[in-house]
Amino acid sequence: MSPIALRRHYASAAAAVAPEATEQPFFPDEPAGPILKTEIPGPQSVKAIEKLGKVFDTRSLNMMANYQRSYGNYIADLDGNVLLDVYAQIASIPVGYNNPTLLLAATSPEMASAIINRPALGNFPQHDWADILESGILKVAPKGLNQVFTGQSGSDANELAYKAAFMWKRQHQRGGAHIDFTDHEISSSMTNQSPGAPELSILSFTSAFHGRLFGSLSTTRSKAIHKLDIPAFDWPQAPFPVCKYPLDQYAAENAAEEQRCLDETERLIKEWHNPPAAVVVEPIQSEGGDNHASPNFFKGLRALTKKHDILFIVDEVQTGVGATGKFWAHEHWGLETPPDMVTFSKKAQTAGYYFGNSELRPNKPYRQFNTWMGDPARAILFRAIIQEIERLNLVENTAVTGQYLYEGLERLAQRYPSEVKNLRGKGQGTFIAWDSPRRDEVLKKAKSVGVNVGGSGATAVRLRPMLIFQKHHADLLLEGLEKIFKS
Amino acid sequence: MSPIALRRHYASAAAAVAPEATEQPFFPDEPAGPILKTEIPGPQSVKAIEKLGKVFDTRSLNMMANYQRSYGNYIADLDGNVLLDVYAQIASIPVGYNNPTLLLAATSPEMASAIINRPALGNFPQHDWADILESGILKVAPKGLNQVFTGQSGSDANELAYKAAFMWKRQHQRGGAHIDFTDHEISSSMTNQSPGAPELSILSFTSAFHGRLFGSLSTTRSKAIHKLDIPAFDWPQAPFPVCKYPLDQYAAENAAEEQRCLDETERLIKEWHNPPAAVVVEPIQSEGGDNHASPNFFKGLRALTKKHDILFIVDEVQTGVGATGKFWAHEHWGLETPPDMVTFSKKAQTAGYYFGNSELRPNKPYRQFNTWMGDPARAILFRAIIQEIERLNLVENTAVTGQYLYEGLERLAQRYPSEVKNLRGKGQGTFIAWDSPRRDEVLKKAKSVGVNVGGSGATAVRLRPMLIFQKHHADLLLEGLEKIFKS
Repeated sequence: MSPIALRRHYASAAAAVAPEATEQPFFPDEPAGPILKTEIPGPQSVKAIEKLGKVFDTRSLNMMANYQRSYGNYIADLDGNVLLDVYAQIASIPVGYNNPTLLLAATSPEMASAIINRPALGNFPQHDWADILESGILKVAPKGLNQVFTGQSGSDANELAYKAAFMWKRQHQRGGAHIDFTDHEISSSMTNQSPGAPELSILSFTSAFHGRLFGSLSTTRSKAIHKLDIPAFDWPQAPFPVCKYPLDQYAAENAAEEQRCLDETERLIKEWHNPPAAVVVEPIQSEGGDNHASPNFFKGLRALTKKHDILFIVDEVQTGVGATGKFWAHEHWGLETPPDMVTFSKKAQTAGYYFGNSELRPNKPYRQFNTWMGDPARAILFRAIIQEIERLNLVENTAVTGQYLYEGLERLAQRYPSEVKNLRGKGQGTFIAWDSPRRDEVLKKAKSVGVNVGGSGATAVRLRPMLIFQKHHADLLLEGLEKIFKS
Repeated sequence: MSPIALRRHYASAAAAVAPEATEQPFFPDEPAGPILKTEIPGPQSVKAIEKLGKVFDTRSLNMMANYQRSYGNYIADLDGNVLLDVYAQIASIPVGYNNPTLLLAATSPEMASAIINRPALGNFPQHDWADILESGILKVAPKGLNQVFTGQSGSDANELAYKAAFMWKRQHQRGGAHIDFTDHEISSSMTNQSPGAPELSILSFTSAFHGRLFGSLSTTRSKAIHKLDIPAFDWPQAPFPVCKYPLDQYAAENAAEEQRCLDETERLIKEWHNPPAAVVVEPIQSEGGDNHASPNFFKGLRALTKKHDILFIVDEVQTGVGATGKFWAHEHWGLETPPDMVTFSKKAQTAGYYFGNSELRPNKPYRQFNTWMGDPARAILFRAIIQEIERLNLVENTAVTGQYLYEGLERLAQRYPSEVKNLRGKGQGTFIAWDSPRRDEVLKKAKSVGVNVGGSGATAVRLRPMLIFQKHHADLLLEGLEKIFKS
């Protein structure tokens, strides 16, 4: 179905049912609500899944989708079912399926050229790469960070940032950019031995998720199934605060817990046998269970990293690009000095790390380098995403809709206290989660009420709607959840 | 300039000068030869490089390109210069700039959907993912390998393959897929300690290049500048044979050298304190200096890995997709049993690893997983690349043109023996290189005779033309080289 036909197709449905909330819908021709035709997976999906299983591992498959029939906040399957999607490809769809603004960018001559003429950006950048960066990726750079190194995925972004941190730290230890490597460093690096391959580390936190490549996986601590049987670096993990929710009701207890974690972080920075070159942290631990901490905790981390002359890397792969009611979640903290590096991916549909300090450019070329170094096609798409966010004022929207949704969930928590525990994400846009004693059952049942939703950690239901999620979608979600809780 | 206008633009030039060789040109409207208007970089390029340098590291920049004006084998810059490109984005452009077949794929509705609706393939694959794989990536799967795990880059592909190898090896040590993890394995994995994070390794070879992420970089041994200051795993490196060229003239000496390397490989497999779960090798060491070995060496590696119950991973990131006169370079070896995994990227414009043994699917879901798990947009592009390779019979073309080019280079080597040393790549398509005592000067001067060419290792000039490189291009290249040698 062409995008225009697709919008006509759903527009008739939308006209039939007026949205319950009164705000102006961003996409008036979105489906008015979920459409359920069969159980999920239905017969067409079962057949397709079986076919795919022969060549591709389908054991983690959640739902076989038809993206040509998906639109806005709604994901379609092969059997005519259309679900309200508050999981959004693991928090990676920013402005809706088949978004018309993105479609224009995707069908532009410059996109076609970017796809078929993919450059080795470090050697042969295209003539308009500076413009693409400045009018896109760098336009939304966190305050104080005016440079970027582009990459391919969240894991890749974090590993590139770690590499920058190690090179920076060794340069400081050596005495500056002008001091050359010793022969011993050069020869030992080739055999993976110290000092050329230094015994340094990246400090991360319990329950953290930073990716699944060998370096990033060494900083991931969310679930054993991600890590089992994979060799890892002997890097330290500090405790992430186990806070009580809502955060503001337990301010004193949480402050004590956060101080305990900061103290232990400092001890590890000082004493770990492979000293950290950097601390990496997520503003909200996402895969690890939607764990929050207060701005004071993060300010404390920034202070510790300054005090001990190591770097502070903020992993905004999941929290970034508007979902928390700020463009970057770390804007909520009010830091006095910016993080040293901020990594991004997912909703940006491209990846990389921002930085501001030119010392984070290694002292020689080809130290931070690879063939593609990102992807102009995806950078062009991110630019269109940013334009759409600005056009529809979507960061403001997630703040407003998030508050509306949070209040609705608070009411549900009062009515169904055994179903909604530790509701969290107040003031964090639509980045909301709660614990559920029967989490996996809730996720499964959600499909039968027309909602696609995911979990995080062991017990959390996590909401990761797109930035175009509005109050009338929140109403549908709340209704659907109530049906599940009643059942 | 639109692609049609672009072809018209160069067609008039093509008409003016008849190609010297007599074969039918694949793209009759390609430029007839290089066009030189200014020194490189010219004034427009200098300005653009300066602008880019403010936000992006340009110290590795070779040439700022205008891809809208590049066509076929020719890369254009911002000052009107058009060079014959035998470097091709570090061996990553398969069928020419602005290839019309790829342009059709890039402007198709399914490409637009793939760009704007990028799925989390492990959870929500698109309905036609099996078709895209079967009619594309899997259609060219190496013999004996009928499954694929898709990824994002060559480094990523290798690390995914390493992870599969570690999971497979530990499963064998444990006694099978049905044996569950122990509590001790689970808890120790979370703190990056053995046995959960096992003390196993991947064995690679001196001068190897397998990527720059933390795991892949631990197997890379090509240049210290890639590795300095980055922590690495204590993994073993075996010697890669240092052969004499041409290989067939020194068969006996090379066989002895290869046996020495095989013996040392076996010793390391048996004795290294972190035992290897796999051996990884490139069919031709590419970044490390274009180092060749005979089929017997690789057959020996296959035998050793079988004997010691570890896996054999062939890294075809640079050699794969037709450049050696076979679709996969390891087809030259005549192995009795296929490699366990073959990794790919670069000319495939997507990445991943092929495998055939279903034991290489980990025993539980979510062990080999990430958000995107590849990219349908790039898989659709690879399908179009495969169609173009078939339409123009390009694997045969690289074999034929490669032989023609090699013979021309042999003649140059006879005339300029101090300029062309250790010519290599006979019978390996256009995957040809030689050593040059003034390599960097040759690479630089090449631009002044209208050729863009790269190096590998410390002294090699490496040719990596596209698959559409024909005899008349070879003539131009040989003429250009002779001009440099004469100067």
